[in-house]
Amino acid sequence: MAGDRGVAMLVGAGDAIGAAVARRFAKGGFTVCVARRDAAKSQGLVDELTAAGFAAHAFSVDARQEAEVQALFARVEETIGPIEVCLFNAGSNVNKPLLETTEKLFFKAWELACYAGFLVGREATRYMLKRGRGTMLFTGATASVRGGKGFAAFSSAKFGLRAVAQAMARELGPKNIHVVHLLIDAGVDSEAIHMRMKAATGIDAREITADSLTKTASIAEAYWFACNQSRDGWTHELDLRPSVEKW
Amino acid sequence: MAGDRGVAMLVGAGDAIGAAVARRFAKGGFTVCVARRDAAKSQGLVDELTAAGFAAHAFSVDARQEAEVQALFARVEETIGPIEVCLFNAGSNVNKPLLETTEKLFFKAWELACYAGFLVGREATRYMLKRGRGTMLFTGATASVRGGKGFAAFSSAKFGLRAVAQAMARELGPKNIHVVHLLIDAGVDSEAIHMRMKAATGIDAREITADSLTKTASIAEAYWFACNQSRDGWTHELDLRPSVEKW
Amino acid sequence: MAGDRGVAMLVGAGDAIGAAVARRFAKGGFTVCVARRDAAKSQGLVDELTAAGFAAHAFSVDARQEAEVQALFARVEETIGPIEVCLFNAGSNVNKPLLETTEKLFFKAWELACYAGFLVGREATRYMLKRGRGTMLFTGATASVRGGKGFAAFSSAKFGLRAVAQAMARELGPKNIHVVHLLIDAGVDSEAIHMRMKAATGIDAREITADSLTKTASIAEAYWFACNQSRDGWTHELDLRPSVEKW
Amino acid sequence: MAGDRGVAMLVGAGDAIGAAVARRFAKGGFTVCVARRDAAKSQGLVDELTAAGFAAHAFSVDARQEAEVQALFARVEETIGPIEVCLFNAGSNVNKPLLETTEKLFFKAWELACYAGFLVGREATRYMLKRGRGTMLFTGATASVRGGKGFAAFSSAKFGLRAVAQAMARELGPKNIHVVHLLIDAGVDSEAIHMRMKAATGIDAREITADSLTKTASIAEAYWFACNQSRDGWTHELDLRPSVEKW
Repeated sequence: MAGDRGVAMLVGAGDAIGAAVARRFAKGGFTVCVARRDAAKSQGLVDELTAAGFAAHAFSVDARQEAEVQALFARVEETIGPIEVCLFNAGSNVNKPLLETTEKLFFKAWELACYAGFLVGREATRYMLKRGRGTMLFTGATASVRGGKGFAAFSSAKFGLRAVAQAMARELGPKNIHVVHLLIDAGVDSEAIHMRMKAATGIDAREITADSLTKTASIAEAYWFACNQSRDGWTHELDLRPSVEKW
Repeated sequence: MAGDRGVAMLVGAGDAIGAAVARRFAKGGFTVCVARRDAAKSQGLVDELTAAGFAAHAFSVDARQEAEVQALFARVEETIGPIEVCLFNAGSNVNKPLLETTEKLFFKAWELACYAGFLVGREATRYMLKRGRGTMLFTGATASVRGGKGFAAFSSAKFGLRAVAQAMARELGPKNIHVVHLLIDAGVDSEAIHMRMKAATGIDAREITADSLTKTASIAEAYWFACNQSRDGWTHELDLRPSVEKW
Repeated sequence: MAGDRGVAMLVGAGDAIGAAVARRFAKGGFTVCVARRDAAKSQGLVDELTAAGFAAHAFSVDARQEAEVQALFARVEETIGPIEVCLFNAGSNVNKPLLETTEKLFFKAWELACYAGFLVGREATRYMLKRGRGTMLFTGATASVRGGKGFAAFSSAKFGLRAVAQAMARELGPKNIHVVHLLIDAGVDSEAIHMRMKAATGIDAREITADSLTKTASIAEAYWFACNQSRDGWTHELDLRPSVEKW
Repeated sequence: MAGDRGVAMLVGAGDAIGAAVARRFAKGGFTVCVARRDAAKSQGLVDELTAAGFAAHAFSVDARQEAEVQALFARVEETIGPIEVCLFNAGSNVNKPLLETTEKLFFKAWELACYAGFLVGREATRYMLKRGRGTMLFTGATASVRGGKGFAAFSSAKFGLRAVAQAMARELGPKNIHVVHLLIDAGVDSEAIHMRMKAATGIDAREITADSLTKTASIAEAYWFACNQSRDGWTHELDLRPSVEKW
């Protein structure tokens, strides 16, 4: 039966990484709940998964609002099932010289990539601790470990999220909650990146970038691997990049 | 003459690290401007430095308010002199289990230790870039590189500040602004820590902790060293801990 | 048919991690070649795998001897098949105060854990580069990233091996050779550790350590995961520790 | 009087970093003992320092030979004075594709940059422990923390040396021996580098590289700073790079 491993709650789940993780975890036996600003945008994914015999639901949430996050988790726990896995995947890259980094931009980068991650991680923990089990997945980036030129806002937020993941892992591991931080040191093969590249160069990147961008399905497999580790050997952090990447 | 090396602007300068840095940089020829929530608390320090023949001024600032930070820097530049060195030293340690970490606590830890650091660093940069020189000093901690159990809020903020410092260093180094991040992996020998220890144990820690806490003067010396490096060999990050520390 | 994915060459493959990786990769379709100082010690494993319908061979090698390593790889390539995966797993933990660390001990720790890893990695590369594909697996430890008290010899060797793995990853990734470094931040659940614990405490650790040691099968799964990643998303480094581990 | 702070023993002290450290520590009151393969090459430096009223001596040593290192330290302790500071500065950069990295090259890189560092560090420790004080300085490089393409041999050795320094710091700090690891993330402004650049480009680099190479005097100042820290606040690791460096 679909979804008998419980709920995989995917927050900040868009059409790229979020959708790929949804497909992988649905296939793996989880009831998938995808949450983003506007649930309507996930309807296609939910239809696709449902048609394939999987259990999937879409929710609207502004993950930066504590009350919305709490309401979402309560609703899913009550009406759908126990949240066994939770992914936090929000965050928006931005590169600006320091003097052009407005306080608003700095705040918003943090609010979305770090603060919302704290709210989501803490809310998932509330339910997982009661059951004494669970898996928490955080999406990281190159900017999580390197404060590059122009990345004061974004890397500050991603460094901050990594600290949240580490602190959670150290506190919650002994309580049987597995916290994972995935360092994606790569461009991600998404519609968005192809559109940006085509706009900039006139070239359809799908033709030329074979394997130079990390596919969302590969990211989903990394999360799937971590989620299925037995508790005697848990991975907290792993990196991911294309073979051709310079690093 | 006192202060002929320009202004050392010390933000988040309290009675411990801030005061020690003020003494060191005053002695070294800088006009010292100390800024904290309530300038009145720095009056003793200003009197001490002035009596010793140094140039020192105290300012009130809430470093989390962009307008206040901008007004402070503008006022100092206009009425006192060019800001050649700027220290950001605010931040307040906190240790709580994840479920007791309120969103308010998480926000406030970040606002003070990270966001204010961005505001101060960016404002200092505005003036230093025009002159093509300057030194920016950031106070870090163990929590800047380790997300320990119970430190989701504080380490997230300190990781975030470290990213700001790194991004600034990479952008501004080639423009002759030296950005330093000091990792204080230690308890700091301050009145506050002695009072806490005495309250907890009844023992006056000053008698028993010889050299097990890092003295504020030693921290000031580390900043002084970095501030005086020639530009062919700049230190961006250095650690500091007592000889007896386990790490 | 058994072994149609080519040869998995496991060097420094003893009864713990080596045997578990052999089982996993045999099951996954590789012809397994296990090499250690004395091949006779692997006969039981080879018999077990052969009886289960898998292809397995044992070899004697002193991996610290360039000529022996070269002869081993040449023989396997000629008589068994193309080496598609190579694991380097040798290394022997040792903890001594600095003044009791003899030059011989320091040399031997390095020779086994680092130098042999270089010889094996380079020899595997020679064959993999010709075919334009391959996976190289290195076993790391806590000591790979932390020079702890008493670990001058062992951590020096393990730091050194990690550098070899990194340098190989950066050079060989673009040539389609995937280099993986697994940080095992844990005690490994092996006969050896149980005997040591029983000798020290009189307690049969198997009864009390449930999940506090990392099982060799979990380590093998981590390698299996990495080995099967598609080249658009390769993991170079991942950690592994029991849920209850303090770190 | 010259040299009344005891002996600064500088091993692997050539005409660049070694000579600069010798000048700084002589000026600071140490009797300087410089040791390298061929003492004759240090005669100019000894003459210069002696003429300036400082105490300086040159020794021949192959720091990769345990007996030679032991004899050197015994001789200096007996005939000159107590070794209060010891610098290990040997190591020779090399960049080769993996398949061109011979076992001999790999061994030699390690023997000089890592093994000799262990021998020297351990020998210094023997004398310092008896007196309950001392400072041990190790020269690191970018390759100490990054296994770059082509640097399997050199970075393996430098990673290994860093582990030695860390293990020593953790063991010996509580015994009042200060261990410092200096990460020089830069080209060093030496005769050797100028000759290589001129040979390659025909340009006299001294004219064009203003501040793009780190001056040996700046390196010496960093060591001098660390050597004079009080034990309540010791730096174990600090980086150093030109303002214009990309990193």
